[in-house]
Amino acid sequence: MIKPLGDRIVLSIDQPEEEKVGGILIANNAKEKPVTGSVVAVSETGIGDTEAPKSVKVGDKVMFDKYAGSQVTIDGEDYLIVHEKDILGVL
Amino acid sequence: MIKPLGDRIVLSIDQPEEEKVGGILIANNAKEKPVTGSVVAVSETGIGDTEAPKSVKVGDKVMFDKYAGSQVTIDGEDYLIVHEKDILGVL
Amino acid sequence: MIKPLGDRIVLSIDQPEEEKVGGILIANNAKEKPVTGSVVAVSETGIGDTEAPKSVKVGDKVMFDKYAGSQVTIDGEDYLIVHEKDILGVL
Amino acid sequence: MIKPLGDRIVLSIDQPEEEKVGGILIANNAKEKPVTGSVVAVSETGIGDTEAPKSVKVGDKVMFDKYAGSQVTIDGEDYLIVHEKDILGVL
Amino acid sequence: MIKPLGDRIVLSIDQPEEEKVGGILIANNAKEKPVTGSVVAVSETGIGDTEAPKSVKVGDKVMFDKYAGSQVTIDGEDYLIVHEKDILGVL
Amino acid sequence: MIKPLGDRIVLSIDQPEEEKVGGILIANNAKEKPVTGSVVAVSETGIGDTEAPKSVKVGDKVMFDKYAGSQVTIDGEDYLIVHEKDILGVL
Amino acid sequence: MIKPLGDRIVLSIDQPEEEKVGGILIANNAKEKPVTGSVVAVSETGIGDTEAPKSVKVGDKVMFDKYAGSQVTIDGEDYLIVHEKDILGVL
Repeated sequence: MIKPLGDRIVLSIDQPEEEKVGGILIANNAKEKPVTGSVVAVSETGIGDTEAPKSVKVGDKVMFDKYAGSQVTIDGEDYLIVHEKDILGVL
Repeated sequence: MIKPLGDRIVLSIDQPEEEKVGGILIANNAKEKPVTGSVVAVSETGIGDTEAPKSVKVGDKVMFDKYAGSQVTIDGEDYLIVHEKDILGVL
Repeated sequence: MIKPLGDRIVLSIDQPEEEKVGGILIANNAKEKPVTGSVVAVSETGIGDTEAPKSVKVGDKVMFDKYAGSQVTIDGEDYLIVHEKDILGVL
Repeated sequence: MIKPLGDRIVLSIDQPEEEKVGGILIANNAKEKPVTGSVVAVSETGIGDTEAPKSVKVGDKVMFDKYAGSQVTIDGEDYLIVHEKDILGVL
Repeated sequence: MIKPLGDRIVLSIDQPEEEKVGGILIANNAKEKPVTGSVVAVSETGIGDTEAPKSVKVGDKVMFDKYAGSQVTIDGEDYLIVHEKDILGVL
Repeated sequence: MIKPLGDRIVLSIDQPEEEKVGGILIANNAKEKPVTGSVVAVSETGIGDTEAPKSVKVGDKVMFDKYAGSQVTIDGEDYLIVHEKDILGVL
Repeated sequence: MIKPLGDRIVLSIDQPEEEKVGGILIANNAKEKPVTGSVVAVSETGIGDTEAPKSVKVGDKVMFDKYAGSQVTIDGEDYLIVHEKDILGVL
């Protein structure tokens, strides 16, 4: 797993749920991007004036701004790396 | 309910009132977006230089900037998450 | 009445005067928006680094930047909520 | 007269001179806006971090940036309200 | 090798892997720019308010923002010079 | 002469030289604006956080950014009023 | 030579090398602007908050951002005046 730096947090993104209608799998409205995820890593290393995050911890389920962060792929899994300030709140 | 972070506040948005004219339901002018709501959660966790809000509390009825905040859906209910500075005043 | 927050001030906007010409009512040049008003409420609650206004008080007649502020309707009356720095001066 | 706030200064703008050519009045090049004026009021009230001006006083003849400030009309006279930093120098 | 200044870090960029399909060499999707690399030099000289980096060291394998940094060629080799804040994390 | 304020400096601009070719006067390439001048006045009055210039004095021949400053006409002479930071160096 | 001010550095720019192919002189790819140069002067005079550079000295061979700085001509020679922060590193 990546060790994020500065005020960064690594999230695994919740996939939007699919609905079964008469046995047919229908993905939810594609316009509604997932905005919840789970914290999988938190920076322990502030950079300059930027402190390491203190408001969330690994395992927290969080909401984040739809267009926040950098999408990365690590070991074939997709993650989102966001700044602490992009976390709207803890669920 | 979500626990907002930093200087964020969760609002339930007041629906624009509908008027009945001769028994027919007519929504108000769609151009007039709702700008009042009720505070349902207030951050208790400052981030870096950003302090947790001190000017409003849960239950306050507030006015906010029309285009402020992030719309989120929690447990099927729509909420708006805004920064404290986007709150114009308390009604 | 709304209690403004931060460095905000609530103004009631002076209506542009109408002129009577031979008994006919003629509104002034529509391009000239009103830029004077009366202070009806002043924030008493600073937010973060933003202090509550100290340069004007309720009842002051003020000039403000034409495009400043948020227009709101409270109890059927139109008001303008502006930041203290948008007040040009006191008349 | 208006009492300016913050770092603001009220100027009466010098009119561009007209030239008489063979008795005919010809306005100077309209593209050349007036950039000199006289200080008619100086703020005595700083706002937040903004201090009241100390570099000019009422009666000073000054040069200012062509596109600076807000034009206002007070008692039928046109004035320009500028920030102290928009004053280029004292003549 | 170049000695980077300020908060800069020199990276050698990992080449995107090629896949062999039936003996034919196929470059990966060109749209997916490489976002991992190895630290080959770290500034030891802060500039003004900018401190030298403390969060990574030579040899670290890192992820960085796709569009970050300046591409340079030194002794025929391509490198990327990035600011410490553009490093997402250490792998 | 104008007394500049804040971090301002008044420059008289060097005219681009003309070349004589067989007695015919040819102005240099109009695209090459003059970028050297002489300091004719230096502010002695800082404004707020802005200090009066300390790096140049009247009579210094300086280079400045081509697009810096405000062009003014005083007593029929053209001058350029620039901020100290727009002075590239002293010749 | 010019004495640069603030955090400025004067560079003489390395000319892109030309290649001889069968005795014919061919300039390198014009798209590849020179990005190395030699420091010929360093400011000794900070301006306001800006300190004089401490990370390079006259004679240093440096790399700089392609689009940084102001091109000037002094005594018929072309130079580039850059801010210290535009120096990527010392070769």
